[in-house]
Amino acid sequence: MSDLPKAIHIKEEGPREGFQFEKGPIPTARKIELIDALAKTGIRHMQIVSFVSPKAVPTMADAAEVVAGLTMQPGVAYSGLWFNDQGLDRAIATGRLEIKGSISMTASEKFLKKNLNRTPEQQLAVTRGLIETYKSRGIPIERGGVMAAFGCNFEGDIPVQRVVDMVGQMLDLAAGYGVTLGRVGLADTMAWATPLSIKRVVGAVKDKFPGLDLELHLHDTRGMGIANAYAGLEMGVTRFDSSVAGLGGCPFAGHAGAAGNVCTEDLVFMCDEVGIETGIDLEKLAACGRLAEEVVGHPLPGSVMKGGSLRNLRNKIAEAARA
Amino acid sequence: MSDLPKAIHIKEEGPREGFQFEKGPIPTARKIELIDALAKTGIRHMQIVSFVSPKAVPTMADAAEVVAGLTMQPGVAYSGLWFNDQGLDRAIATGRLEIKGSISMTASEKFLKKNLNRTPEQQLAVTRGLIETYKSRGIPIERGGVMAAFGCNFEGDIPVQRVVDMVGQMLDLAAGYGVTLGRVGLADTMAWATPLSIKRVVGAVKDKFPGLDLELHLHDTRGMGIANAYAGLEMGVTRFDSSVAGLGGCPFAGHAGAAGNVCTEDLVFMCDEVGIETGIDLEKLAACGRLAEEVVGHPLPGSVMKGGSLRNLRNKIAEAARA
Repeated sequence: MSDLPKAIHIKEEGPREGFQFEKGPIPTARKIELIDALAKTGIRHMQIVSFVSPKAVPTMADAAEVVAGLTMQPGVAYSGLWFNDQGLDRAIATGRLEIKGSISMTASEKFLKKNLNRTPEQQLAVTRGLIETYKSRGIPIERGGVMAAFGCNFEGDIPVQRVVDMVGQMLDLAAGYGVTLGRVGLADTMAWATPLSIKRVVGAVKDKFPGLDLELHLHDTRGMGIANAYAGLEMGVTRFDSSVAGLGGCPFAGHAGAAGNVCTEDLVFMCDEVGIETGIDLEKLAACGRLAEEVVGHPLPGSVMKGGSLRNLRNKIAEAARA
Repeated sequence: MSDLPKAIHIKEEGPREGFQFEKGPIPTARKIELIDALAKTGIRHMQIVSFVSPKAVPTMADAAEVVAGLTMQPGVAYSGLWFNDQGLDRAIATGRLEIKGSISMTASEKFLKKNLNRTPEQQLAVTRGLIETYKSRGIPIERGGVMAAFGCNFEGDIPVQRVVDMVGQMLDLAAGYGVTLGRVGLADTMAWATPLSIKRVVGAVKDKFPGLDLELHLHDTRGMGIANAYAGLEMGVTRFDSSVAGLGGCPFAGHAGAAGNVCTEDLVFMCDEVGIETGIDLEKLAACGRLAEEVVGHPLPGSVMKGGSLRNLRNKIAEAARA
């Protein structure tokens, strides 16, 4: 219990994950409405769009318009996602996004092949190119990520040691360019993690790289998202990605109703209740969760936005006691 | 990690919780179909009906017909719920149910008043009467339960010491009648628990009563169900109530879509993945979850029945490797 951190940093990824995953078109104005509402909850970092081919992901074709239409809140970092120079150029062209470099490796060779059609050698070459691009353009590189760190639908269970080795490779690769990665994200891309494997993998990575700041990117496809987040908290992890209302789905689940990312307001609720500071107002966030359901036009998996927080109940009880 | 039990016992409560909660009528034959399917999954104990006033709970009016229509599986205990002598008589009259006595206390006076319209003194008198009835009719009493053990919508947070004291009172009360309660259930009736409070309360009860077998009855209204179950497993708890597909809702949530009990197949999935034996076949159970959605006619909250288990994926990967 004593290992629970005092405060954590949540990166809200609902807009990017959700708008990207939805089949039907969502009006640009409604995307802006949700992002603007989220920006007023106390969230300090949001990944809101991806700059990808409009042919491949038609629902992201309006990424630049979304960014242009925002009412930017001071103290909130808005970021986007890109996979190549074109995407990076589009992100920079908005003039409003936080532009930071990030490199990524995949713990499963088969997933790397399926997802990006690359061999590990090709991925390494692409990553080297990326680092060079960032360096030449003066873009800071602060973090790296390991995808499929807990298991893979195409390769199966991933040995803990492979993840530890991959983190080491990534740190070394960056160091070769004079870049110190202070932060590494472990992504449970296909929802294979359990609280036990979170503890094992995080424990092994922390043992090997004690100074490294770890992030967890968790999916809830098999209902383990919040339990895995708590396991991460118990291991002292202080950075989590999550999605309001659980926006975003799992393209590998073969069921349209399968959950995607771990739900932000459920995570914030848990933190509130165990005394971990997030800086986020749960009631405002739950209202955003309900707005997200309205914007996408169908129910979303988040629980607290439906079940209600405990703060309101405690307030009511206190009022009744005073009356 | 070392505290995780090797095996746990799951009591399936989906039929009772779910059929009781649903607004619309469900044909008796469909209830029987679901219960019969569940009985073939390896589940060893199911609470399938309640014998309550048909006026108060019209969807349970056919309880006796449901029981009469079952194809009973050897090795499966089928039980019912009752709140008075009439209900008990109806349960006995089926001739097919496991008849075991149980006593219950409520950690929140306000909930006791709201839920059963009793003072603690009245509840004590009722419980004494119940023990006498069970004793006079030769019905064994094996367990007691503490409701609202982690918090209450009408009273707020519940002090840990109050739960410990209440368990002690219940054991003493039973002992006064020569009855040894070997098992006590802690119910998170209104979904106030977090993994931290589960660890605190279970830890305190275990410290005070080391020989006692503990059960957890968890609700998922605020998305904490599986995380709370894992906290219980880490504390060595080996008995859990749960509901297939997350059947059952929360009458206090004020939102029809709010989740009820923790979902059986998500719990079984987690146990499978961390090496805890449940005796239950996850694929068969997930099929029951999908059947439950069909029977009630609307989506249910369970995740694994939508996201899929990992066993099938591992099998496919192994097959591909052999080919």
